[in-house]
Amino acid sequence: MGETKKWDTRRTEYLGRMNQAAPFIKKDKVVDAKDVIKLLEAVIKPGDKVNLEGNNQKQADFLAECLSKVDKTKVHDLHMVQSALSLPIFLEIFEKGIAKKLDFAYSGPLGGPIAEFINKGKLQLGAIHTYLELFARYFVDLIPQVTLVCAYEGDSSGNLYTGFNTEDTPIQIEATKFSQGIVIAQVNKLVDKVKRVDIPGDWVDMVIESPRPFYLEPLFTRDPALITDQQVLMAMIALKGIYAKYGVQTINHGIGFYTSAIELLLPTYGEELGLKGKCCSHFALNPHPTLIPAIESGWVKTIHSFGGELGMEQYCNARPDVYFVGPDGTMRSNRAYCQTAGHYALDMFIGGTLQIDKYGNSSTATAKRVAGFGGAPNMGCDAKGRRHPTDAWLKCGEEFVSQADYIGPMKRGKRLVVQMAETFLEKMAPAYVDQLDAYKLAENANLDLPPVMAYGDDITHIISEEGIANLHMCRSLDERMRAIEGIAGYTEVGLRADPKVTKQLREKGILQTPEDLGIDRSKATRSLLAAKNIREIVDWSGGLYQPPKRYHNW
Amino acid sequence: MGETKKWDTRRTEYLGRMNQAAPFIKKDKVVDAKDVIKLLEAVIKPGDKVNLEGNNQKQADFLAECLSKVDKTKVHDLHMVQSALSLPIFLEIFEKGIAKKLDFAYSGPLGGPIAEFINKGKLQLGAIHTYLELFARYFVDLIPQVTLVCAYEGDSSGNLYTGFNTEDTPIQIEATKFSQGIVIAQVNKLVDKVKRVDIPGDWVDMVIESPRPFYLEPLFTRDPALITDQQVLMAMIALKGIYAKYGVQTINHGIGFYTSAIELLLPTYGEELGLKGKCCSHFALNPHPTLIPAIESGWVKTIHSFGGELGMEQYCNARPDVYFVGPDGTMRSNRAYCQTAGHYALDMFIGGTLQIDKYGNSSTATAKRVAGFGGAPNMGCDAKGRRHPTDAWLKCGEEFVSQADYIGPMKRGKRLVVQMAETFLEKMAPAYVDQLDAYKLAENANLDLPPVMAYGDDITHIISEEGIANLHMCRSLDERMRAIEGIAGYTEVGLRADPKVTKQLREKGILQTPEDLGIDRSKATRSLLAAKNIREIVDWSGGLYQPPKRYHNW
Repeated sequence: MGETKKWDTRRTEYLGRMNQAAPFIKKDKVVDAKDVIKLLEAVIKPGDKVNLEGNNQKQADFLAECLSKVDKTKVHDLHMVQSALSLPIFLEIFEKGIAKKLDFAYSGPLGGPIAEFINKGKLQLGAIHTYLELFARYFVDLIPQVTLVCAYEGDSSGNLYTGFNTEDTPIQIEATKFSQGIVIAQVNKLVDKVKRVDIPGDWVDMVIESPRPFYLEPLFTRDPALITDQQVLMAMIALKGIYAKYGVQTINHGIGFYTSAIELLLPTYGEELGLKGKCCSHFALNPHPTLIPAIESGWVKTIHSFGGELGMEQYCNARPDVYFVGPDGTMRSNRAYCQTAGHYALDMFIGGTLQIDKYGNSSTATAKRVAGFGGAPNMGCDAKGRRHPTDAWLKCGEEFVSQADYIGPMKRGKRLVVQMAETFLEKMAPAYVDQLDAYKLAENANLDLPPVMAYGDDITHIISEEGIANLHMCRSLDERMRAIEGIAGYTEVGLRADPKVTKQLREKGILQTPEDLGIDRSKATRSLLAAKNIREIVDWSGGLYQPPKRYHNW
Repeated sequence: MGETKKWDTRRTEYLGRMNQAAPFIKKDKVVDAKDVIKLLEAVIKPGDKVNLEGNNQKQADFLAECLSKVDKTKVHDLHMVQSALSLPIFLEIFEKGIAKKLDFAYSGPLGGPIAEFINKGKLQLGAIHTYLELFARYFVDLIPQVTLVCAYEGDSSGNLYTGFNTEDTPIQIEATKFSQGIVIAQVNKLVDKVKRVDIPGDWVDMVIESPRPFYLEPLFTRDPALITDQQVLMAMIALKGIYAKYGVQTINHGIGFYTSAIELLLPTYGEELGLKGKCCSHFALNPHPTLIPAIESGWVKTIHSFGGELGMEQYCNARPDVYFVGPDGTMRSNRAYCQTAGHYALDMFIGGTLQIDKYGNSSTATAKRVAGFGGAPNMGCDAKGRRHPTDAWLKCGEEFVSQADYIGPMKRGKRLVVQMAETFLEKMAPAYVDQLDAYKLAENANLDLPPVMAYGDDITHIISEEGIANLHMCRSLDERMRAIEGIAGYTEVGLRADPKVTKQLREKGILQTPEDLGIDRSKATRSLLAAKNIREIVDWSGGLYQPPKRYHNW
């Protein structure tokens, strides 16, 4: 029974590759930067699943550059399994034919080129995931053979200090190393002793001092100067119509100006509404600079972060009661754990979107960009495995009128999933549409499904400048469609609204205009923002926040 | 702006406590076992949130014993935030008034006493969670001040070797240590150098060599000798009606005899059906002994495990192509990551239950036991954040006829969630009931909600010895109720079945009897099991599996 079968082919493979790598390894686990291309040629084989660390903040860009320069007769047809593909150098690896297949979660600005590559046959798309889902597959059917990561410091034994930007590194390394894969780290500095051990040396095979620090993207920095009066109005609607109504304490804010406006309204309008202490005590959230005024005003008890944010290092480290900070005094982020928190421990996900269809499905996908949604699907859905009750969750569940059709007459809560979109966005593109551009993208990029960020049955509230549509209070898909029409303004979808029906929906509380909520539109101006520009955020922080130069306007 | 506010109260608290602990700390981080009670009195304060490691396998029982002996005038009103409360010593801590409140995920045999304690006011229940949900709250609103864990080995710097039974330790320590909490580890052996570093020393404050090894519970061992012919029949129904139909490759099997029977049928009936290679290639699963014959027969590519299983150490270590094994040659389990895999990377969760109500809600809760469901809710639900398609997931989604009512005419997949229950279980208790005992429990234990393991809207299939009810194919709650009646046999629920309706449901394919599936009932005998007792499993393993003595019957 199985006597002839080999059960350690992965280990044999590992040992063989390490043997090939041996000539390039100097002291302990150290490899010179100049030898990395040859090292990669030695340890990576055609068809390998390779994880190249790149997420929405830090990027293993030196290793990427080296990978893009390997001899493609030796290394080709790689299957990249990586969180994000957001630097041109990552794409170069496909351009040159070194990699062929991609499973990922987020691409940002490279969404356009990726779609082109798919069309030209240069890139074969596995699937678009939410971060935690991709990490999950690292332990099941997308186990990486080789993982290339980055860290601030490393020592010759392989111990890594990933500090503020720990992010995806731990889960990626664990999946790889404990399945006899190879882990290679580029570090900004080789040191005798790392500041603190974020990754044990046992888990790392090679360490390279990179010729330059890894690239960091300040993805979650929003300049308050760009927030409009209309966004302030929508933030007021959110605060009074949702935060106050449900008393929401555990929250994730999406990326973007809508939630930045909410953050900057907490110390002003939020306090006017008496919400301090009753809302926003706990976040799973990157270190958003726009949350500083609320933190300084004592709103926030704790924040656990997916990743770091450029310029926020000193501020976070100086607020260890709020952020998760290690014994060395530096924050440790962790995307896998924070997404876990985001899925199961939060009563609300709220964020902006680009398109909502007439059924209530939301997507930021456009016809020609394969961009992914990062963590949004993980948080912008009802966590069906959740069992712990909170007041906000129970209240939303009570209002969810279709529940009895699903599970019989039994009480159950529901997560608040809120999508915000002005009726018209940039270049007068309508946000409320009959069909999502995601359909065209699915066609263009040959996807099995149109990429949807949050589905209509998970979304409980949509906010436009016209008011709130309480989708979860609708008895049917038809009623939900009428509710969406009611806040869709002068878009094609909105123009179909029947004023009589809209009136009925307002009477039922399914639709709520600013007036229904007792909000004075004339007060909805930028003057309500606790900080009106980046400089004022720096002031709130007592100089601890040090924004990247591109945000300096003083 | 906040100048007078202190932002490092947690760190100050930490330093103060460590100062109190100093007299008990010998070399580096080592504390003598005899000093642990005093140590705990020094570092734990009334009202603290304390995590005491106990999960469904390993138990920090020495630290629990010490905690149960602290002076309760010094340490009291603790809020225990722990995965499992499964040893009497854990309950002792409440009995003595040292702890007051409990947030947990699983209790097993202590479910009865916990319910009693709640009634007598000795224990205040926070909530019952699924594991990953509790872990999530460790980073949001249930951050532990003190975490007490166990490991095989530790060194004086605090490095821990958790090896085969790594389980919950990493996530519990990270949440605690990076919020300035205190981490204390009992280890079976203090060593100069740990076999491999599973937890970096920086993350651990004190290490104690325990007077005895930590307790391990072989929770996932099922003796094939106890599998009945009827369970074999249900396993055949599952294999032909679900595994074969959907070609399911990524799976979690629940605990219990139903899925053990399925595992033991793979090399026999499974091969007869031609499923090898088409099903069951990847699991997120504890090291079930009953899966050994299928592994040895070449069915299984990879298994990632939540925890260890007593007796399976050598077998897993000798199969590093299948299990996740570290560079030292020992498996590393990880409950947080495996539950993540279980939620997002699996096409199917299948397991037994004790009660299913007429609407299709499933629960193992009984009126007087607060037992929790461990990982079942996390895997036994539709992962709404999932975005990657597989054939099985898409096929189930296509069959899900209500989908268009939820999200409009848009394609989306659905996870297979299968519950198995014979019509009558032990002591002739009906499995199909009008109302779950969970309701009575909610009343008895003063819970906000009846504890449901898997909700009817998440369950796609129910299997009894009568056949399969395809719940996801039902157009309405009413039709779903008729389908459940159709497989509920002579239970009160089943006796309501209208033969005409049942016939119609069979014609629609919503109900499938063994005959509809072409299964010959006469073949459903124990002779189909690839191993008929523990001894035969040992044989399959070539002697690598070493079952605990209590399972020896030869």
